[in-house]
Amino acid sequence: MDLRPLFEPRGLAVVGSVKPGKIGSVLIGQIIDGGYKNVYAVNPNGEGFRGIPGFKSLRDIERPVDLVVIASPASTVASVLKDAGRAGVRSAIIITAGFSEVGNREGEREIVEVAKRYGIRLVGPNCAGIVNTSFSLYPTLETRPPAGKVAFVSQSGALGGAVLSWAEGQGVGFSKFVSYGNGADLTDVDFLDYLRDDPDSRVVCLYLETVSDGRRFLESASRLAEEKPLIVIKAGRSASGRRATLSHTGSLAGEDAIYEAAIRQAGAIRVGSIEEMFDLSRGFVHLPPVKGRRLAIVTNSGGPGVLAADRAEEVGLIVDPPGDRLKGELAEKLPPISSLSNPIDLTVEGGEEEYRFALSTVLSEYDSALAINVSPAYLDPRPLARGVVSAKADKPIAACFMAGRPVAFALPILEEGGIPNFATGERAVEVLARMAGYEEMRGRAGSVRPAEPVGEIEGEGVLLEPDGFDLLERLGFPVPRHELARSADQALDASHRIGYPVAMKLVAEGVIHKSELGGVILGVDGDRKARRAFEDLKGAGGDRFIGVLVVSMIEGGIEVLVGSFRDPKFGPVVAVGLGGIYTEILADVSFRVAPIGEGEALRMIGELEGEGILRGARGKGPTDIPGLSRLLSDVSQMMFKYPNIEEMDLNPVFLLKEGVLIGDARIVLKGGG
Amino acid sequence: MDLRPLFEPRGLAVVGSVKPGKIGSVLIGQIIDGGYKNVYAVNPNGEGFRGIPGFKSLRDIERPVDLVVIASPASTVASVLKDAGRAGVRSAIIITAGFSEVGNREGEREIVEVAKRYGIRLVGPNCAGIVNTSFSLYPTLETRPPAGKVAFVSQSGALGGAVLSWAEGQGVGFSKFVSYGNGADLTDVDFLDYLRDDPDSRVVCLYLETVSDGRRFLESASRLAEEKPLIVIKAGRSASGRRATLSHTGSLAGEDAIYEAAIRQAGAIRVGSIEEMFDLSRGFVHLPPVKGRRLAIVTNSGGPGVLAADRAEEVGLIVDPPGDRLKGELAEKLPPISSLSNPIDLTVEGGEEEYRFALSTVLSEYDSALAINVSPAYLDPRPLARGVVSAKADKPIAACFMAGRPVAFALPILEEGGIPNFATGERAVEVLARMAGYEEMRGRAGSVRPAEPVGEIEGEGVLLEPDGFDLLERLGFPVPRHELARSADQALDASHRIGYPVAMKLVAEGVIHKSELGGVILGVDGDRKARRAFEDLKGAGGDRFIGVLVVSMIEGGIEVLVGSFRDPKFGPVVAVGLGGIYTEILADVSFRVAPIGEGEALRMIGELEGEGILRGARGKGPTDIPGLSRLLSDVSQMMFKYPNIEEMDLNPVFLLKEGVLIGDARIVLKGGG
Repeated sequence: MDLRPLFEPRGLAVVGSVKPGKIGSVLIGQIIDGGYKNVYAVNPNGEGFRGIPGFKSLRDIERPVDLVVIASPASTVASVLKDAGRAGVRSAIIITAGFSEVGNREGEREIVEVAKRYGIRLVGPNCAGIVNTSFSLYPTLETRPPAGKVAFVSQSGALGGAVLSWAEGQGVGFSKFVSYGNGADLTDVDFLDYLRDDPDSRVVCLYLETVSDGRRFLESASRLAEEKPLIVIKAGRSASGRRATLSHTGSLAGEDAIYEAAIRQAGAIRVGSIEEMFDLSRGFVHLPPVKGRRLAIVTNSGGPGVLAADRAEEVGLIVDPPGDRLKGELAEKLPPISSLSNPIDLTVEGGEEEYRFALSTVLSEYDSALAINVSPAYLDPRPLARGVVSAKADKPIAACFMAGRPVAFALPILEEGGIPNFATGERAVEVLARMAGYEEMRGRAGSVRPAEPVGEIEGEGVLLEPDGFDLLERLGFPVPRHELARSADQALDASHRIGYPVAMKLVAEGVIHKSELGGVILGVDGDRKARRAFEDLKGAGGDRFIGVLVVSMIEGGIEVLVGSFRDPKFGPVVAVGLGGIYTEILADVSFRVAPIGEGEALRMIGELEGEGILRGARGKGPTDIPGLSRLLSDVSQMMFKYPNIEEMDLNPVFLLKEGVLIGDARIVLKGGG
Repeated sequence: MDLRPLFEPRGLAVVGSVKPGKIGSVLIGQIIDGGYKNVYAVNPNGEGFRGIPGFKSLRDIERPVDLVVIASPASTVASVLKDAGRAGVRSAIIITAGFSEVGNREGEREIVEVAKRYGIRLVGPNCAGIVNTSFSLYPTLETRPPAGKVAFVSQSGALGGAVLSWAEGQGVGFSKFVSYGNGADLTDVDFLDYLRDDPDSRVVCLYLETVSDGRRFLESASRLAEEKPLIVIKAGRSASGRRATLSHTGSLAGEDAIYEAAIRQAGAIRVGSIEEMFDLSRGFVHLPPVKGRRLAIVTNSGGPGVLAADRAEEVGLIVDPPGDRLKGELAEKLPPISSLSNPIDLTVEGGEEEYRFALSTVLSEYDSALAINVSPAYLDPRPLARGVVSAKADKPIAACFMAGRPVAFALPILEEGGIPNFATGERAVEVLARMAGYEEMRGRAGSVRPAEPVGEIEGEGVLLEPDGFDLLERLGFPVPRHELARSADQALDASHRIGYPVAMKLVAEGVIHKSELGGVILGVDGDRKARRAFEDLKGAGGDRFIGVLVVSMIEGGIEVLVGSFRDPKFGPVVAVGLGGIYTEILADVSFRVAPIGEGEALRMIGELEGEGILRGARGKGPTDIPGLSRLLSDVSQMMFKYPNIEEMDLNPVFLLKEGVLIGDARIVLKGGG
């Protein structure tokens, strides 16, 4: 999509009153002060402002206008857009509020229709505008931010504004900023697609309350994350958060677990706060890729080094001591008082040359380095900063020069040398760990195409268990041997064919939680027990009794659950978790937007806290994790192959040393309410 | 202990060269600039500096000197101390390094002996000095910090210095600062004891690498935390961190889990970074106690409100919507566009009066409030700050005014009004949650006295299981019925007395992991099986066979582990965890320094992630948690009653609906190595 008329307009008109204090005049002031020239004012009186010409109608401007910024009352917006369309304007930013966010859906629908009719692309309404620093373009009410390599797309105008105001003090500069407000036309995915190809943006940050279209978001985010880092703040993790989002944007936020899965699946990076976003952006902008997890810490003070090492290990970096060869190399030139484990503590004897030497030497073995300097008030930190800068290699070095006035003079040296400085060593290593994670994920997203529909499954509502088992068996899924018996004699015959011991399960209309009704009898190991089990189950079923499902007993194995359901935002979703009561308590389940390949399924399994149990805890061998991945991948395609499947719940699935077996299947079809 | 000579000296001498650039001159400069008057210089030439008189010996000063600050070479320190002792000096700060931290233990022992002989209390050696702002006393090389209500005790001089330098920009002021370096005499516990009674210190912060004495630390920290908040940064959480601490301080840091337990047990608050320490200190200094977890968020922007609500729920605050009555009250006066759920979003229409009204109204129902303001560049935030300040009640209000220049003018209004402002809403709610936790813990520490020794247990090394069971039974612990059988006939007799089904366990010299050797046979339910089980076990035992322990089978129950061992720093420690392979993978174990009462034991159990399983997951009823607490409390006294117990490992313990039963016991006595 061509968004150049929006981000690089040949001319720009601001529609709205230019009386002092009115939004129109604030906007024009910002645009002029930002350095953009071809700006025009449009208002009923044709008043100009601060030397720029005023017009009564967009059509009166006899120079090219690609973008109109609308701040006139909500009731006038549709006619302004018509005027713009007739004047050949191709894009509009609607600052004006008073549309769907206050229930005026009709008004919003109208402006979208008008825009579509004239081929105008809209940002907003109810938004804070955009910024393109490389084009000196600032049609926004918010603080004009410093220029840089970070693009920031925000669903919330106010939060976007706060970020712009905050950026300067944080050393973050922006390429583009977009607040898209209600997102009536252009929205999250459009800007992600545009920014993917924007050479000015090295990192893209997104503040999201809800996505417009889950699947398109996943696609756009994945494509972008292959090219450059995508950092996402998704609000509404908590119950109260979701409620607030709801009242604020007029749209339902999807379950957070699914967002979490989609962001991860796209190879994007989720952060919880604006400070993390700033830190991480600075890392990505200034540092080369972090191509591994081995971190060396070089410090002149023990305590801060240890705190950084603690946090580094918590976030998955490896802070191993140097090998003997490297240690020998270091010992040759470093002061004897230095500690040569990791953190490498140069003590107060660490000067410019010691920092340079230690950092460049350790980077022959480690993947990244952190330079910590704690400057006492009486020591000049500038030589140390120069030492760090001159060590700069093709591997990343982050710095933590602490703190306040004693190091203030050293910070510009680091900045000019391209070394990002962080407030604490802990924050620095968090950035390095996230950057390492990004490299690991990159290019692995490996999207899988949804299967073509192959038909409908007969029936509606919840399938009876024998029907579910038969269906799964027909489709090649691993189910145990099973037969439906309608009489005790049939049950005995079935047991003989299957071979004792068997399990017997009640099949009855509308009985779903069999086990809670005593509807499952395990370990039936002879004819007498089988007959009695049949009669017991028949009694339990009462009027609704249909039969008894005789199933071969599954020996050993670890219980997992595999499921698939439809999320309102993202459509089919697939889930895997550890089964049994432990999972219910620990909620150890991992999700993905379906479909997925076996590689992605392996990553899902790897995210489970109890993964070690599947890999074989003490006394139990490893299980067939590849088999489980295959099952997950197959299940993830089911709703595409059979569009009338509403839900699949395979729980438990027995994960064996070799193979997997579905112990119980609940399949829900559309219809049948 | 009287530390007044140290913190409020009538006179102070600096021993060391006063040549330009030497540490002695830097120290004297700091002390003079800080405003302290009665300072003297002592050096071989009797040189003065910046107008203060110089002397060749401490004994030549004919005015009272309570404190000597020593910066002369390490080899001279002992004789300086002798001189000081003869001159009647009562305390010394030894800045000089070159003692135990570089292996010179002998030198350190010598100065401690000299000091003891003369009744001088020492800070250091190898330290950065102290600060007492209320006495204008700054004998330190570090930045002189602003005065305030926070005391900071740091094992690391450099980290302490960084904190002092950083404090000003963070709005934190200090009452006292101590860097105690090697802690040869005065150390962590002494300063905690002193600060507990120091009226100038409202909050105490401690940076710790290792404690001097685990039990004394626990006592001092507990006593302090009853009076005022104690915030602890403990370095060395990670493997690499511990290694670095080791090489840095020359002392072995205890396992982090035990530190974690002791800090929690003391009612202190552990934080992971200096930023958290600053945030939390400001909360405690400026806000009244947070006496509950219900939080109201009042904002003028949706996004930041939601992010704060998300984080609030993650850290255990409750962000419920207001009740109908309160909603009605709010609706009467707030602009109709406001969202009256929680966060309460006043939108851009929220002005001074709206903030004041909303905050004071919600605090009738909620325990604390957060006021968020996101100021667009064109809006004056000062009235909003005044609104927040005038709402100030006896319940805590924290603020997050975002960000940068647009809100800079509002921050002094908040500060003067006693409202702490935080960089993000997320950081503000983390502080409120920690403060709520402190109130919940306060006064609950309920220390239990160690039992008096009652004797020695006979034997040494690992007790054989029957002996362990017999011992436990004699002491009143719940063990299943058991008998040792040395022949198959004895095994049958025992089984008859106990009643089938029974379990049979191999008893053999030096065989510890019975289950891995096939040394346990469960569900023996008849004579034939019993005889065969005996023979199998006898075969497995071979030469080392002693007998077979016949034990009544335990039906149902949930497996937990209960243990006790000696930590090198803290002495006897007690542990509880969920048993089985899940625990091994999830490492879900909770620790306490022994002994503990049943209340503390209940809190330990409450910390387990799998606590819900004990409380009764679906399909399983609740278990006897009070019984388990009793067992934990009893086990925690065992090493005090029987000082020759080295280790106790009860695993599994079966937690039943009523009662607990010890399934296996491994008891290790001292000696026998």
